[in-house]
Parts: sequence; structure tokens; C-alpha cells
Amino acid sequence: MKPRSLALLLPSSLAIDASDLRSKTAKIGQIARAASVFRADRIIIYRDPDLDETELIERILNYAETPQYLRKRLIPLADDLRYAGTIPPLRTPHHPLDAEKIEIGDIRVGVVIRVHENGSWVDIGSKRSAFLNVSIQKGERVNVQVTSNKPLKAVPVDDDEIAGYWGYSVMSAGTLSEALTSTPAPTHAQGLRIATSRYGESIDADLLRKIGEDSWSGDVLVVFGAPHKGISEIMDEEKRREGGGEKEKGAKSFISEFDYTLNVIPDQGTATVRLEEAVVATLAILNLSFH
Amino acid sequence: MKPRSLALLLPSSLAIDASDLRSKTAKIGQIARAASVFRADRIIIYRDPDLDETELIERILNYAETPQYLRKRLIPLADDLRYAGTIPPLRTPHHPLDAEKIEIGDIRVGVVIRVHENGSWVDIGSKRSAFLNVSIQKGERVNVQVTSNKPLKAVPVDDDEIAGYWGYSVMSAGTLSEALTSTPAPTHAQGLRIATSRYGESIDADLLRKIGEDSWSGDVLVVFGAPHKGISEIMDEEKRREGGGEKEKGAKSFISEFDYTLNVIPDQGTATVRLEEAVVATLAILNLSFH
Repeated sequence: MKPRSLALLLPSSLAIDASDLRSKTAKIGQIARAASVFRADRIIIYRDPDLDETELIERILNYAETPQYLRKRLIPLADDLRYAGTIPPLRTPHHPLDAEKIEIGDIRVGVVIRVHENGSWVDIGSKRSAFLNVSIQKGERVNVQVTSNKPLKAVPVDDDEIAGYWGYSVMSAGTLSEALTSTPAPTHAQGLRIATSRYGESIDADLLRKIGEDSWSGDVLVVFGAPHKGISEIMDEEKRREGGGEKEKGAKSFISEFDYTLNVIPDQGTATVRLEEAVVATLAILNLSFH
Repeated sequence: MKPRSLALLLPSSLAIDASDLRSKTAKIGQIARAASVFRADRIIIYRDPDLDETELIERILNYAETPQYLRKRLIPLADDLRYAGTIPPLRTPHHPLDAEKIEIGDIRVGVVIRVHENGSWVDIGSKRSAFLNVSIQKGERVNVQVTSNKPLKAVPVDDDEIAGYWGYSVMSAGTLSEALTSTPAPTHAQGLRIATSRYGESIDADLLRKIGEDSWSGDVLVVFGAPHKGISEIMDEEKRREGGGEKEKGAKSFISEFDYTLNVIPDQGTATVRLEEAVVATLAILNLSFH
């Protein structure tokens, strides 16, 4: 029961337990890898006032997601990308191993490098640029399909024409509540909102099957808390800051915001599970629901 | 259905895709963490002639598993432990956060530092050493339970008296076949042998339940291939080196060696799944079978 889309919600403090840029980069890189292995198409960073590294996280996630041949064009030089080169390659279909090898029908991520009144030239990783039959703004990232090799020509393709996993987009939100508001409501018809918590319901084979049925062709949203505080605490804090809430209200709204609150690691052997471990474990388990 | 024990079999080439000691250490550290989160009690490194880093892997795994307060006593200084300090702490019950805080009934890992004719003194992480009522060889690692605080006294405890997860032991084997020979045979009565392979059977809720029933109170063995070649290739090579085998034999014996050959990441979004990702994903999923 494949979901139509899979979004991860992660806090801006996700690397609060990493002491230096190198280990922050490694942690964010592991999340980029996990998102790709399990075909997440959106990552939303919600702001945690304890540590707002939204920009760093977005930058590193975007770096990892951008095909290698387009990084020079799309990723501005930044000091905090110093260790981004140590992130293992994603090896997704939109990151070809040999970008120079192009066949008719290939789908590629490209960037418009020159615009003409009846077309554009697009860098798709070859020394030769591809001629696109439409005018698109210079610098724009665009998915294209190769229609001719000599000369190199391509046409734009829509997302739904692309069969393979095509990377994720990165967004940010002021608060977790805001991130939830901008995503489908928790009714099974429109999608599924899943919170992760060690105090949640332990997942088992029956629950896996139920989630699979509920997620059918909808948008699935998986929310993770921060290394130093869980989702319910984060939502309580947000309610308090808004000033709207007695404590009770916060706890109640926490429950009603989600279809499932899952503990995906029953009987964990360690006092804490690291976020990057929780992301892989959660997505590995949910992936079974979706197949 | 909790298994009696959970062993991971990993190749000596597991870090072949890591270019330097720092990233090898990070990779091995992630495996140490995953083993602990999912309560593996044995890790067996089998030799892959392509790259034999058994010693490095054992050293780093043992470093991570040893309570911090005993590392100086138990882990000889080694240049290849240069980055071992960057591995996140395991936070298992046998790694107390504050080793100085001791209560009667506490179970601790200790090391014998002085022997007496009617007892031994054991370092259990406190400035004061604990008196143990039996003579044990100096330098030995021993699990003890505190029976008195002033003076500090303890008695040895058996593994089966320890309720919490108590770390893993590390072993090595000349070949994968040898590692399998020294572990329970693939009959459900004695235990379960699980191979991981992207060409294996895709795991789902029914299979999860079945594995749970089969693993009941037995020894579960989970085998991983190398980053650059899978288990069946490794076993074929071993057969050829032994000289015993036509190719057919190898393939056949591969199947008969295991109760299950599982693909735990159906429809993976990336061309390859890294070993450290596969370990977390596999153990997260099997953990559901065990509960």
C-alpha cells in the first residue's frame, strides 16, 4: 500500500548532541541517506527555540540531494559545507554514476544555464548542454527527459512521469504546529500522521498491517522529536509560548494531532536512541507497511 | 517471542568502503550502537580475504562495549583507537552515567586488580575498590553485585541473573562457513539462522510473525554480507578455496544454511544500502518479531 508521499518532520535542534560541525554533518548526512533509502520525498525542519540550526540542516540536506554534477551551479560556497563532501553518495536514480553517459529516454535533473526566445539550454551533467524546447528562467532546476543525443535535446517532465525515486525537497516551518497545519489533517482519507515516541504504542505485525491499510495512496507524515525532548514536550512548549494554553490542552491536542504515536523500538537496550538511528528504524519498519 | 541470544555475523571487510580510519571508526561505532540498541549479545567477525580488518574491528567494538571506567585497565593503547573517543556512548545498563554512585544491589562490570587468598579486590568504577568473596585472576573482567557499601563488598553474578542488556562479546572466525559451524544448526528447535540479501524474500507482517514463532527462546543468528559482495558470493568463494566444490554445490549449500534469506528493504530508493544502515534496519524489523 504505497503512500502517495512520505514526509519527515525533524526539529532544528536535531544535532544538539553533536559537538562540532564534522559530527553535525555526519548526523545530517545519515538522515539524508535514510530519507533516500526509504524514498521520503519531503523533509520539513520545524523550529525548536533551544537550538535553531535550520539553515545549516537545510544546506547540508540540499547539498546531499543535489546531483554531484550540479552542485557547483546550485549550491553557493558556504563555510559550513566544509565537511559535506564526507557524506556518502545517495546513489539514487537522479544521481547517475557516470553523468556523461546519456541515452535517449534518460531522465535527468538539469539547470537552465542560458535562455533563448524559443528554448533554453540546460546543464544535465554532460560537457554538451541540452536544448530544451521551452523557455525557463536561468538558474532554475528542472527535470528533463532526453529526446535526442546528437544534437542533445530534452523536454521537461512532470514529477508523476518519473517512476524511480527522485530525491527529496527541504522545507522549514516556524513551529511543529505550523508544520502540521500546512500538511494534511489527521483523517485517514487524506493521509496519515505518525508521531514517534518511546512512550508510544509498541508496533507489531497487526499494527503494521493496519498502518499499511490506512496509508493507502495518501500522504504519510512521520514526526520526530529532538534528541533532548520528545514531541509532546515540544508541543506543550509551543502552546505555552502561544499563551493559549493550560497544560491539559497541550497534552490533549498532542494526541488528537496524530493518527498513531508509535514506539518502534520496544525493549531498547540503551537508555537513549539517537535520532539518526530512530529515523532508519522507523522508516525501515513503516516501509514494510507500504509494501 | 524473545530469542535466548542474538548474534550478528559481519565480514572483516565491512569497512572496505570507508577510506580512512576516522570513517572506519564511525562505521564500526554505528554497528556497536545498533547492536546495543537491539540487544545483540554476540558479534562474530568472519574473515573475507578481500580485506581482513578483523583486528581493527574487534578492537573498536570492544572499546565501545567496555564501560568507560574500565577502558584504561582493559584496553591497551593502540594507534588505531585514535578516533574511538568520537563513538557516541552506548548508554547501556552496564555503562552507568555516574560510576561513583553505588547502591546495594547494583550490578557492575569489574576488573580484578588485586588477589588475596580468600578474595579479590575489584575495580567497579569507584575510587574505592570492592572486595569480592572469591579469588579470581588479576586482570579478569567479572560481573559483580554490590552487597555492602561501607565497606564496599560484592559477589560474582551469573549472566542469567542479569535482567538488563549487558553488552556484547566479540569473536572472530576464519570463514563464514566456520562461523556458521560453530553456531547452532538451522533447525528451528535449536535456533534460527537469518541471511540478509537484497535478493532475498521481502519481509512483511506475516513473515514477521512466523519468524517470531520460530525464534522463540532459541539462538538467533543474523548474517550480513560485505559492502562489495553478498553472502552467496562469499560462500561460493569459500567453497572454491576449499577446493571441494563445483559451483552448483555452493549455491545449494547457501540455501540450506539458512532458515530465512530476507530482503528487509523492499523497493529501496538507492542503488546500495550501506552496511550500517542495513544493520539498523534489519535489527529494527527483527526486534518486532521478538516482541
